[in-house]
Amino acid sequence: MTEIYNFSAGPAMMPKKVLEKAQQELLNWLDQGTSVMEVSHRGKLFMELAAQSEADLRKLYNVPDNYRILFLQGGARGQFAAIPMNLIGKKGKALYLNSGHWSATAAKEARNFAEIDEINILETEPQLKVSRLDFSDIAEQYDYIHYCTNETISGVEIFDIPNVGNTPLVADMSSNILARGIDINKFGVIYAGAQKNLGPAGITIVIIRDDLIGNARKDTPSIWNYATQRDADSMINTPPTFAWYLCSLVFQHLLAEGGLKATEERNLAKATLLYEYLDSSTFYYNTVAHENRSLMNVTFTTGNDELNAKFVAEATACGLQALKGHKVLGGMRASIYNAMPIDGVKALIEFMKVFEQRNA
Amino acid sequence: MTEIYNFSAGPAMMPKKVLEKAQQELLNWLDQGTSVMEVSHRGKLFMELAAQSEADLRKLYNVPDNYRILFLQGGARGQFAAIPMNLIGKKGKALYLNSGHWSATAAKEARNFAEIDEINILETEPQLKVSRLDFSDIAEQYDYIHYCTNETISGVEIFDIPNVGNTPLVADMSSNILARGIDINKFGVIYAGAQKNLGPAGITIVIIRDDLIGNARKDTPSIWNYATQRDADSMINTPPTFAWYLCSLVFQHLLAEGGLKATEERNLAKATLLYEYLDSSTFYYNTVAHENRSLMNVTFTTGNDELNAKFVAEATACGLQALKGHKVLGGMRASIYNAMPIDGVKALIEFMKVFEQRNA
Repeated sequence: MTEIYNFSAGPAMMPKKVLEKAQQELLNWLDQGTSVMEVSHRGKLFMELAAQSEADLRKLYNVPDNYRILFLQGGARGQFAAIPMNLIGKKGKALYLNSGHWSATAAKEARNFAEIDEINILETEPQLKVSRLDFSDIAEQYDYIHYCTNETISGVEIFDIPNVGNTPLVADMSSNILARGIDINKFGVIYAGAQKNLGPAGITIVIIRDDLIGNARKDTPSIWNYATQRDADSMINTPPTFAWYLCSLVFQHLLAEGGLKATEERNLAKATLLYEYLDSSTFYYNTVAHENRSLMNVTFTTGNDELNAKFVAEATACGLQALKGHKVLGGMRASIYNAMPIDGVKALIEFMKVFEQRNA
Repeated sequence: MTEIYNFSAGPAMMPKKVLEKAQQELLNWLDQGTSVMEVSHRGKLFMELAAQSEADLRKLYNVPDNYRILFLQGGARGQFAAIPMNLIGKKGKALYLNSGHWSATAAKEARNFAEIDEINILETEPQLKVSRLDFSDIAEQYDYIHYCTNETISGVEIFDIPNVGNTPLVADMSSNILARGIDINKFGVIYAGAQKNLGPAGITIVIIRDDLIGNARKDTPSIWNYATQRDADSMINTPPTFAWYLCSLVFQHLLAEGGLKATEERNLAKATLLYEYLDSSTFYYNTVAHENRSLMNVTFTTGNDELNAKFVAEATACGLQALKGHKVLGGMRASIYNAMPIDGVKALIEFMKVFEQRNA
């Protein structure tokens, strides 16, 4: 079989070593004679896995002691509801920065639970560009300020951290969590669905500063009440144990590969290769300003829908999968999360060159 | 290695054939060169899996056309909140039948969202016994009536369906879903976390009558809004694809093994064997009335905590795992869900006999 490279935006490619380990021990975990998915989450062995996975994530991100890590269910979209239910307090409103589809969707859901102000921070002409990150002048009015660090659909990533004064900054990092080191202290809450950089779909990670826990409104579902889940070690109900296990393997894999410094270097190398090729081409183009070009989701187009469709079909036939852009944007999108090897990017560029020669 | 039998109450044993198939294709699903957990939920192949899994579940349960099936996240405890958010309507209140720990927990969570009446239906002396199932005289006051068909902790199962007149009956079937055929028409909503009879933890199934969809309160999180999820084929956000895939394999496995009639026969045979042995013994006893003895969770005790602990430790050493009773009840509990082969029950009884001989 041709080498397969899967550019899916999510659920996305997982590290091959992680899948191989999961496969090898799927029916016999830690010599127990059972699968990890068949054991009680409250048993000694799974509790050890849970504790180790938290310790590994803390190590990867250098998470300060005054932050808690929760492993929840419901995806980032569940947190779109849980965030206002837990964080809206005395000020009674929050500010959402709109940089594209996902940050707008978060704001829309939050409106069901609180008064939400929204500021568009994305310029679209001549390129997609984040135009404003300083909100220190208005931050005090809000219980929190929310943004999305990487817009998966358009391929817009925000590398600088917004200035929000002393107001808690809440970040949806679903599509670039663990892609590089960050200063956790700058954030009140970081949350992410797992299905891009963490593991399989079905588990959601929340990293939250201690003092922001405990203010949930009464009708917050208990599985999303941060205080309840903190007190229950994320086990107020049965957690998605197999997904948690896979996340734990991903954390170990990232540590073994040199931690987030090495991860960032690999991600920079992959993205640079692809963007440099795009910039050198007169056949393909990308419409994101250099300073906001996502290291995770690289969007590009030939400018011709028919040609784009042909590109996707032929690429798929060559083992380069899931390159079709999101339906709202069209074109192509190469999602090159942590698990994508640089050889996948090289194979994509080689294919792009051949396709250009044949179709220019 | 000794044959291992895993009596965990949940996450519980899965069918070995299902795990073997999942293992075999973990890195290469349908010859795609990728894992099923790495592909888009909106891709053709996963959409086909989703549709087939629903069709298989409909076939197993003979689900009428006016019922929808949703595949959600958050576990049964998530539904403890979602049920009142979606179903409380003009009457403004619901009735919860309390038959033990889980039905009481559901009522407690529901109180955060609505006025809840609660009726204790469990006699505890001289045995655990469900004392009342006719609520036709008071049913009209309520938007719905909720009960739990199988109390996992105490091993109390309710085989007769409560009489609730024309009021929608809502059943938490987490621990006996697909254990036998039922008349779906008797229910307004059936829901279940997957980790006992359906698949791994992290996916929740809701079977709901059409006319009960569409009345959710405004601040229902979109991932639990039944109308939203119905319209989105349970994909308003990324579903837990790998867990869904495993459920689909379990459904196929049950169909291949003869459907729910054959499943019920196997479950009856297993439970009968174990209860008959318990009744014949003067060393062990079970405190549930015959008509409410669970086919899924068989509780028993020697009446002596020290001896119980010794039993659990020695059984574990013999490959009979996870027999410790729930902490609130003590004693032992053998969870013998669909996936437990009758040989596991026979091995348990053999061990019990030897233990009795040595310790009586």
